[in-house]
Amino acid sequence: MEKRDVIYLDHAATSWPKAPGVADAMVEILNGPSASAGRGNHGMALQAGRTMFTTRTRLAKLFRISNPNDIAFTSNTTEALNLAIKGYVKPGDHVIATMVEHNSVRRPLEFLKRTNGISVDYLPISEQGDINLEELEKTFRPQTKLVVCSHSSNLLGSILPIAEISKLAHDHGAVVLLDAAQTAGLYPIDVGSMGIDMLAFPGHKGLLGPQGTGGLYISPKLDLEPLLHGGTGSQSEEPEQPLVRPDRYEAGTSNTVGVAGLGAAVKYVMEQGVERIYEHEWNLTQTIMRELKGIPGISLLGPNIGQPRTGLVSFNAQGHDAAEMAFNLDRDFGIAVRAGYHCTPLGHKTAGTSSGGAVRASVGHTTTEEEIEALITAVRLIVK
Amino acid sequence: MEKRDVIYLDHAATSWPKAPGVADAMVEILNGPSASAGRGNHGMALQAGRTMFTTRTRLAKLFRISNPNDIAFTSNTTEALNLAIKGYVKPGDHVIATMVEHNSVRRPLEFLKRTNGISVDYLPISEQGDINLEELEKTFRPQTKLVVCSHSSNLLGSILPIAEISKLAHDHGAVVLLDAAQTAGLYPIDVGSMGIDMLAFPGHKGLLGPQGTGGLYISPKLDLEPLLHGGTGSQSEEPEQPLVRPDRYEAGTSNTVGVAGLGAAVKYVMEQGVERIYEHEWNLTQTIMRELKGIPGISLLGPNIGQPRTGLVSFNAQGHDAAEMAFNLDRDFGIAVRAGYHCTPLGHKTAGTSSGGAVRASVGHTTTEEEIEALITAVRLIVK
Repeated sequence: MEKRDVIYLDHAATSWPKAPGVADAMVEILNGPSASAGRGNHGMALQAGRTMFTTRTRLAKLFRISNPNDIAFTSNTTEALNLAIKGYVKPGDHVIATMVEHNSVRRPLEFLKRTNGISVDYLPISEQGDINLEELEKTFRPQTKLVVCSHSSNLLGSILPIAEISKLAHDHGAVVLLDAAQTAGLYPIDVGSMGIDMLAFPGHKGLLGPQGTGGLYISPKLDLEPLLHGGTGSQSEEPEQPLVRPDRYEAGTSNTVGVAGLGAAVKYVMEQGVERIYEHEWNLTQTIMRELKGIPGISLLGPNIGQPRTGLVSFNAQGHDAAEMAFNLDRDFGIAVRAGYHCTPLGHKTAGTSSGGAVRASVGHTTTEEEIEALITAVRLIVK
Repeated sequence: MEKRDVIYLDHAATSWPKAPGVADAMVEILNGPSASAGRGNHGMALQAGRTMFTTRTRLAKLFRISNPNDIAFTSNTTEALNLAIKGYVKPGDHVIATMVEHNSVRRPLEFLKRTNGISVDYLPISEQGDINLEELEKTFRPQTKLVVCSHSSNLLGSILPIAEISKLAHDHGAVVLLDAAQTAGLYPIDVGSMGIDMLAFPGHKGLLGPQGTGGLYISPKLDLEPLLHGGTGSQSEEPEQPLVRPDRYEAGTSNTVGVAGLGAAVKYVMEQGVERIYEHEWNLTQTIMRELKGIPGISLLGPNIGQPRTGLVSFNAQGHDAAEMAFNLDRDFGIAVRAGYHCTPLGHKTAGTSSGGAVRASVGHTTTEEEIEALITAVRLIVK
């Protein structure tokens, strides 16, 4: 199926099409002279190791990380967040998160509440998706060890002021874990100037790489308990995971095929420029919002027109079930959007949409104004 | 690089080349009409879900598993073993493993010993790789909840009598976790008749799929604490992981691309026939052993000639360091083998090779008698 057969507006779930060169890079390493990274010293195993290092180096450059080995590859953002949260938070610790966290943050925290005696405050977020920094400051306790938040809510699209949040966190002796599921490759991230201690990111969304990839940056100041214990090809005689990075956090055979694809994707994203991609997507969201606002009965979620936001617009149409709207858009117009809770139930409480969820249209680097027009026309026809 | 440019004898680390059709299946889903499995109901997301189900169904058929949804995909065997061990074993439990376990079993167990107050017995294995079932029987305690063992040691190549081990385990109220890293796709596995309660397997070794894939079968009688907590696209409003399988154990975006490749690979393996592949590899190992035995100073590890074994032969040459031997084979003869500890330090204690490891040559479905001859000739030249 060619891209133009379907109007794909579900980029917040996964990007499509992927960056040029991703498939070729994957096939090359799958069929080519490459075996298991870090396992053995023959030429093929070394080639696999070099592929891992190349992608790591590109990601480090993108996020302004000094040492590529401070990035551990994971199979998705969820694994990265589980590694960060379960590896860092200790019994008795207090954690601050927000009301718009994805279940990939909320569920690990609830798991630790249940099993490990931690406490969590979920900070309210305004309907537009803003955080109140004064409220945040009041939420710190002496036991607060971690602030974890979505860089951008996958429901509202608002972008949180991470540098300010980090400053408050560090002033109170806590570290910051950023969930960049909706911003990696789509909005500039600089771990140094933004004060990010851990950065969880997907490979298959804004970075335009394949499903099955993602990673976690871990500040060299931190040491986490690994999520996976197992073989690393290094210090095999020790019963504990080695301390050396990235081995410590990457037990088992690596997804070299996926990481090769991710490397090609990150190269493409850097060539395009994250700022340019953001501008393109922002312009499209503004068109969607302006047009949808003109349709009677449509209500929009998240930041107002003119404000920063990632490439998604969530909305509801009075008298129309969100799931039904998404189904009609797919069946009758060939437009793929997402309806439902988007794995952020507290986010829906914030937005007042707990009963039926919302429709979310999310754009990507190849989305055109024509595709947006088609969406608007279709919504008009459905609600009239 | 064409396959024939290198003689690849490191199939126990990862198979190469992969099955025909693997790359095509991956590219098709990467570029084709497929988005995120279980996320949204538009056609592209449903297509991704179907791909996951097809591969799951093929794996279920291969391992004689009644319900494909009892298989959870993981990124490798290590993740599968971590999920099984950490998800099943409770504080105070006693676990029986063997002396030839890979670090992917040993390190999770040592982690739980350190943090969770469990106890572990590592059962001795003979130099030929045999288990003493009478010794095993004596090792059970009232607190024994789990027996975990490699189906075949990645150092010795011996194949353990799983049905007998399972019977003893079940008689003592324990369940059996099988590490099939070296046997999945290479030796027949039937979870029912072999009494396997959990089966951890790689996608990229004997199943001939891509790196980044693997899985865990979990008997419907068991409920594990998930390793990953996060979004599942189902029951999003609940703070806990859903009970429904496979969602419960597959949080976050799935590696649909890798799983599509694995599906093509499993189809190929079933067409070839596991018994036939085993016979092919067994014949090659017998040739290697016969020929190596004739070279002065060479000592072989594992089962004797004529006995069952997977497609690997580990050996040492008197007066020759194992790492140096592997290096020479690669540099001077273009033969890729592995030297070292193979992530099984206790296995080397068993084999009496703790000081320098061993050279391991492991064959695959495409390995030829001519390639084996080249290995033997090269070893002869190096040791003479």
